[in-house]
Amino acid sequence: PPIMTQIEDNSGEIRPPIIDYVLVFEYKEIDDEEENKDSKLNKAKERRTKFEKLMAEERIKVQIEDIGNLRFLLLTTSFSRLCEEAEHVKLEMPLAEGRIEDPVTGCWDRLKDKLRTDTEDDFVSAPFTLQTPDVFKDWDKPEIFFRPSLRQLLTNHILINLDITNKKDIDEDEPMSKKGLPYLLHKGAYKDAFTIHTPSIGDPDCIEEREERLKQKAAETGEKFSKKSIDHDTIEDDWSKFCRKPDERQLLNDTWTKIYKFQPMWKIRNYFGEKVGFYFAWSGQLITSLIFPVVFGLAIFSYGLYLSIMSYQVEKNIVSMNATTTNSSSGIAGLISDAKELVFDLLDVIKESFDNEVTPFFALVMCLWGTLFLEAWKRKNATLAYEWDVDSFSMSEPDRPQFVGTHEKQDPVNPEETMWYYPLTRQAGWFLTSGSVLIIMILMVFISVASVILYRVIMMVDYCQYMSAVECVLVTTIAGSLLNAISILILGRIYEFLAAKLTEWENHRTQTAHDNALIIKLFAFQFANCYSSLFYIAFFRGDPGENGVLGLGPQYKDDCGRNNNCMSMLSFQILILMIVKPVVKFSKDIILPWLKELFRNRKCCRKSNKTDPVDETKVKIYTPQRQKIRDYIEAEYKKPKLGDFTLGEYTEKVIQYGYLMLFASSFPLAPLIAFFTHLFDIVTDAKRMLWWYRRPLSVIADNIGMWYGILQFLNVAGVVSNAFIIAFTSQWGKQYNEYEKLWLVILFEHAVIAVKLIFHITIPDMPRSVKRTQRREKYQVSRILHEAAVDK
Amino acid sequence: PPIMTQIEDNSGEIRPPIIDYVLVFEYKEIDDEEENKDSKLNKAKERRTKFEKLMAEERIKVQIEDIGNLRFLLLTTSFSRLCEEAEHVKLEMPLAEGRIEDPVTGCWDRLKDKLRTDTEDDFVSAPFTLQTPDVFKDWDKPEIFFRPSLRQLLTNHILINLDITNKKDIDEDEPMSKKGLPYLLHKGAYKDAFTIHTPSIGDPDCIEEREERLKQKAAETGEKFSKKSIDHDTIEDDWSKFCRKPDERQLLNDTWTKIYKFQPMWKIRNYFGEKVGFYFAWSGQLITSLIFPVVFGLAIFSYGLYLSIMSYQVEKNIVSMNATTTNSSSGIAGLISDAKELVFDLLDVIKESFDNEVTPFFALVMCLWGTLFLEAWKRKNATLAYEWDVDSFSMSEPDRPQFVGTHEKQDPVNPEETMWYYPLTRQAGWFLTSGSVLIIMILMVFISVASVILYRVIMMVDYCQYMSAVECVLVTTIAGSLLNAISILILGRIYEFLAAKLTEWENHRTQTAHDNALIIKLFAFQFANCYSSLFYIAFFRGDPGENGVLGLGPQYKDDCGRNNNCMSMLSFQILILMIVKPVVKFSKDIILPWLKELFRNRKCCRKSNKTDPVDETKVKIYTPQRQKIRDYIEAEYKKPKLGDFTLGEYTEKVIQYGYLMLFASSFPLAPLIAFFTHLFDIVTDAKRMLWWYRRPLSVIADNIGMWYGILQFLNVAGVVSNAFIIAFTSQWGKQYNEYEKLWLVILFEHAVIAVKLIFHITIPDMPRSVKRTQRREKYQVSRILHEAAVDK
Repeated sequence: PPIMTQIEDNSGEIRPPIIDYVLVFEYKEIDDEEENKDSKLNKAKERRTKFEKLMAEERIKVQIEDIGNLRFLLLTTSFSRLCEEAEHVKLEMPLAEGRIEDPVTGCWDRLKDKLRTDTEDDFVSAPFTLQTPDVFKDWDKPEIFFRPSLRQLLTNHILINLDITNKKDIDEDEPMSKKGLPYLLHKGAYKDAFTIHTPSIGDPDCIEEREERLKQKAAETGEKFSKKSIDHDTIEDDWSKFCRKPDERQLLNDTWTKIYKFQPMWKIRNYFGEKVGFYFAWSGQLITSLIFPVVFGLAIFSYGLYLSIMSYQVEKNIVSMNATTTNSSSGIAGLISDAKELVFDLLDVIKESFDNEVTPFFALVMCLWGTLFLEAWKRKNATLAYEWDVDSFSMSEPDRPQFVGTHEKQDPVNPEETMWYYPLTRQAGWFLTSGSVLIIMILMVFISVASVILYRVIMMVDYCQYMSAVECVLVTTIAGSLLNAISILILGRIYEFLAAKLTEWENHRTQTAHDNALIIKLFAFQFANCYSSLFYIAFFRGDPGENGVLGLGPQYKDDCGRNNNCMSMLSFQILILMIVKPVVKFSKDIILPWLKELFRNRKCCRKSNKTDPVDETKVKIYTPQRQKIRDYIEAEYKKPKLGDFTLGEYTEKVIQYGYLMLFASSFPLAPLIAFFTHLFDIVTDAKRMLWWYRRPLSVIADNIGMWYGILQFLNVAGVVSNAFIIAFTSQWGKQYNEYEKLWLVILFEHAVIAVKLIFHITIPDMPRSVKRTQRREKYQVSRILHEAAVDK
Repeated sequence: PPIMTQIEDNSGEIRPPIIDYVLVFEYKEIDDEEENKDSKLNKAKERRTKFEKLMAEERIKVQIEDIGNLRFLLLTTSFSRLCEEAEHVKLEMPLAEGRIEDPVTGCWDRLKDKLRTDTEDDFVSAPFTLQTPDVFKDWDKPEIFFRPSLRQLLTNHILINLDITNKKDIDEDEPMSKKGLPYLLHKGAYKDAFTIHTPSIGDPDCIEEREERLKQKAAETGEKFSKKSIDHDTIEDDWSKFCRKPDERQLLNDTWTKIYKFQPMWKIRNYFGEKVGFYFAWSGQLITSLIFPVVFGLAIFSYGLYLSIMSYQVEKNIVSMNATTTNSSSGIAGLISDAKELVFDLLDVIKESFDNEVTPFFALVMCLWGTLFLEAWKRKNATLAYEWDVDSFSMSEPDRPQFVGTHEKQDPVNPEETMWYYPLTRQAGWFLTSGSVLIIMILMVFISVASVILYRVIMMVDYCQYMSAVECVLVTTIAGSLLNAISILILGRIYEFLAAKLTEWENHRTQTAHDNALIIKLFAFQFANCYSSLFYIAFFRGDPGENGVLGLGPQYKDDCGRNNNCMSMLSFQILILMIVKPVVKFSKDIILPWLKELFRNRKCCRKSNKTDPVDETKVKIYTPQRQKIRDYIEAEYKKPKLGDFTLGEYTEKVIQYGYLMLFASSFPLAPLIAFFTHLFDIVTDAKRMLWWYRRPLSVIADNIGMWYGILQFLNVAGVVSNAFIIAFTSQWGKQYNEYEKLWLVILFEHAVIAVKLIFHITIPDMPRSVKRTQRREKYQVSRILHEAAVDK
């Protein structure tokens, strides 16, 4: 259509060009002789040639930059092509006239407004169509018509749906329907494919460069240099020219890191796409929802502490009355032993304070809180899905390049084509294998946990008598924990490897199915790995039966320390796990890459590049603007990959959530710890994603997928686990006999599940206001589209 | 559009006209004086006048027939208006080219094909549009373009959305947005509004008339008359002309009553609409699913019978060995006492056979069966909703005429209009009231049950000693049951009245919300009313504690007959309830109306009409064809109303289902009884709906609504109830001590719920084939519509 070319011209004027995608391969000048030798390299080159031809046909502009021995292809999809793709996938886009007004009425609304960081307005939307493009918002501004995440998404969708298959290639060994970008990456024709961040004045490189320039200037003029004098907005330099306005990344950073306000959900979604958006929305919702348990848990803990101190004082008084004379050893030794005793007493007091008569009530509240949280999230999810216009979205997912069909049949959707498929019976066989491996690995976890216990008990009973107390603690508790940690680590690694392989062999057609299969495998193992030792402490440690641990004999007992209070031990263990886990993650995500970067900067790359005298001549060819782009692309390429960001983050958070839900009754401070780690995590994640790591490819999603089901499972498991902990582990439950304890379990479970069901039934899945707005949207959209049609 | 008028002409040629709707009012010639006196009559007339003017504007043809003092308005909506309404509500209609082929492949498919009674093909469908009407199936045949149920549905939708409000009326006392047909009925402007069956040669009236004619003919010719000689297809008489082809009602009857085949779901849906269709589909699915429990239950029962007979023989042998001499009393008295003993023994043997060591296993299987049934139904539901093209349907529901808004606000959907609403806080107040009334009524049920027990126990202990055995049984068991039945009946009636009133006061905006509120109230009460006495027998009767029933004293015990086997008593009670309930329903639905009809025919109406000499002159005015229509309309008007058919039927079936699920462990023959009553019910319902009752208004639905949730609740309640029955009531549970019994409960519940959850998660909600067909449909529809657009 003629309107397209005009827009195209407008978009051509933007400097620097928007780079939607970057492809990389190792560039080698191959002469003819070598070509014949290395058929693999040859084939790769052939595939690339085909692919680049196809890209040109699809109106994707390619700019080539050679850096070192790598060739970078910078892809920019033309605006008209993006529009076509948007129409093709029936993307919902906001309508210019469809602003949804959000009336601020009550006090609550006004407070929420204060805490808001989003300034974006919600517009009603309709599937994009090139028939009446001018009804859509910002149609006259092609450079911002598609939000940043959409440009990448659409480009990615075009690239994965290209097909380099030739009719003559059809006899090749792997039958597959489409051979797009994933296939080329899989076959090594390209080394890497990634998207880059939009240039921003907040970029560390930028800040560094400016500082240097200002220092130079300061040195020249003799003025004093201070970091504060860098004013990003007013400085007119190369970077400012390089960065496009609005500087989305800086803006996002500024609003995101204000932890006392809501997250800028719209900005996150606009920049990173819906899948990441939903993760942060969920995480934020969890933090907000945790405030109530935090306060309640603190109250319970304080009350417990008060009780514990009281009973300690009473005990102390009795002891001191009984034994005033024996404690008269004075001097330094006496002081030390006094101090030691005080510390131990203090620890005991704190440990005891986790377990008191209001504990069951706390567990009850937490179990119900879990349901309310999930219900609230379901509503939030529906609201976001509606606001982000993804509730009716379904983008056709291509087959994974690794998918191998073994049988051919008629395409069920388009009867004129054939498709390859993999028989269900064979896939079922693989599922059985995966299941067996999972069960074996979980058994291994149990065996490993049991061996460590066995080791500890035998050491304790048979060898501790020949050692000092410190040595005893060293070879039993410390060594035991160490062995446990090592075995968990090793088993975890082995299983991660196996799970990936098995899921590969299950041969799923789409990436989503593949990811879901992987998630469920990993989680089931993580569940056993993370919680089995805790379950051991809660239910078995205190009371190993008449024959001792594993029937070794009555003297081999594994009790729970002083007073044999397993509840306290459990609390202590959870406390440690909840603190250690985030620290490990923090070092893996932040410190390790930082160290790597430091090491690389010190030693080789940056310095050698600058001082390399051979390249000096070549460098001079480029204009400053182009050099800037080259440097920027190189820097982006060198950033660490984020990997499957959401998978890792969800796993971490869900395991934490599991501690909250499964052992609520034993540790009322768990919400507090979770609250702060999650809050800290959001801030570091923001920094990580915006500045330190490569930009992840944006993906459209309309919910948090598999994880919702897993959270529900944890909620239900929590009810059972808490019921038994209250009845059999807690001090409160000790006042009842075995029969009454079982009644307690039954009553607790039935009452909580009943209330959960009532919550589930009575709370609507979608807020009333969203339903109303949806109805209004339908009405508005048809009106706007009708008017547009009439105008034509 | 011009195409419309042409079709209109075609449709005008059909004889007799299709009658979509009938309105009735009492016709009185009112002169001016009387008019002023009776402002109510006057107002009604005014409203009717307005309404009829609106109908004429909407192209609804009205034919007036005066019969007796009633005036019937026979409405026929013009085809063009129906099309417009169909477009307006975005009705999905099948596409001419979109036939979905259903490949018959395996043995199972071929068997299913044999049992099929439907010959209808499924076509892919698209929302109806007048832009390209010719892509839709049967567009060239306006008389069959809309299936019978749709004509009524659309006409009804037009009628309820008419609005007789005048701007000057706005100050009237009841503020309401729309004043359509429901408003006029509510205000008494029309006496009745109903839809009529399509004339059929299977109609009882028709058959009667023919028989008479043939008898006359036979008498004239002297041939012998036999009923068999009536051949519906070849006889050319008034009725055959009167009936349109195809004779849907006769066809439906012929296929529906073949109980060894599947129900003709498509025909039911085409004739009665989707809501009734879903009810029968659900009922049919329940019957088919019951086959497995029936067989399994019979096996369990046979095994139990075998065990019971064995133990009886052993016992008998011991008794006979011990007491060979005492039993020597001969003569008639001895024979009678022998026979009596034999009968009692037989009853005991049967009673005992319900309760044996495989009972827990049967309960387990039934609990899981319940889940599988619901999962299977969910899939069936999805399939039907897809095939019937209702999965994406949403017809705007009008406000109920009884709805009273007290506050005005901006319409959230169309901001230019205002609407009336009823504040949530006030509605919440009514909900609380309803809840309290419900609780009070349930308490009344408990009190009534308890009083009857008390009465029985006191009679038994204090007065039975002065009576004979027969008298004792009479004043205790029989009188107790009678009192119980009476109190249940009275409480039920009171509550039905209260529930209707309360739901009215809750002031729901739409009929669906109103119905749901009513359903949930009625079911909650029914649950207490039907099951509380059974729960008493299962858990309390055998063991009233140390102080006897209600602490009256240790001698006041209420045991479960011989051997104090409450399980047997429970089984027996359920057996009686499961047989009595359907019999009561059957007499209410079939025998009572039949008696009424008989009574009316004998006494007054029909005869008096025919012999009335005054009317004789008037009757002669009409042509035979018109007289036929008049007679037919009158006959339809006199048929009993079906009322809320699905509400009553679902309640009945769901209560039956409750016996199956809640007390599965006690009565393995329950599935058998349920199977036969349901089968019998479907056949009588078919007859009832087709021939004996008025035609119900067709309603579009895409599922069974509220009832699915209630069935799920019964499933879960069944797990708990069975767990406790197995552990505490069954003979099998007696071998364990109290502590072990509780563990049994916990284990049973957790295991069953876990397996249920696994079923729920792993069984997809929609069959794979439907998903695939859906995808294909999307593809096909866009292709067909695209081609149609290109052709234009």
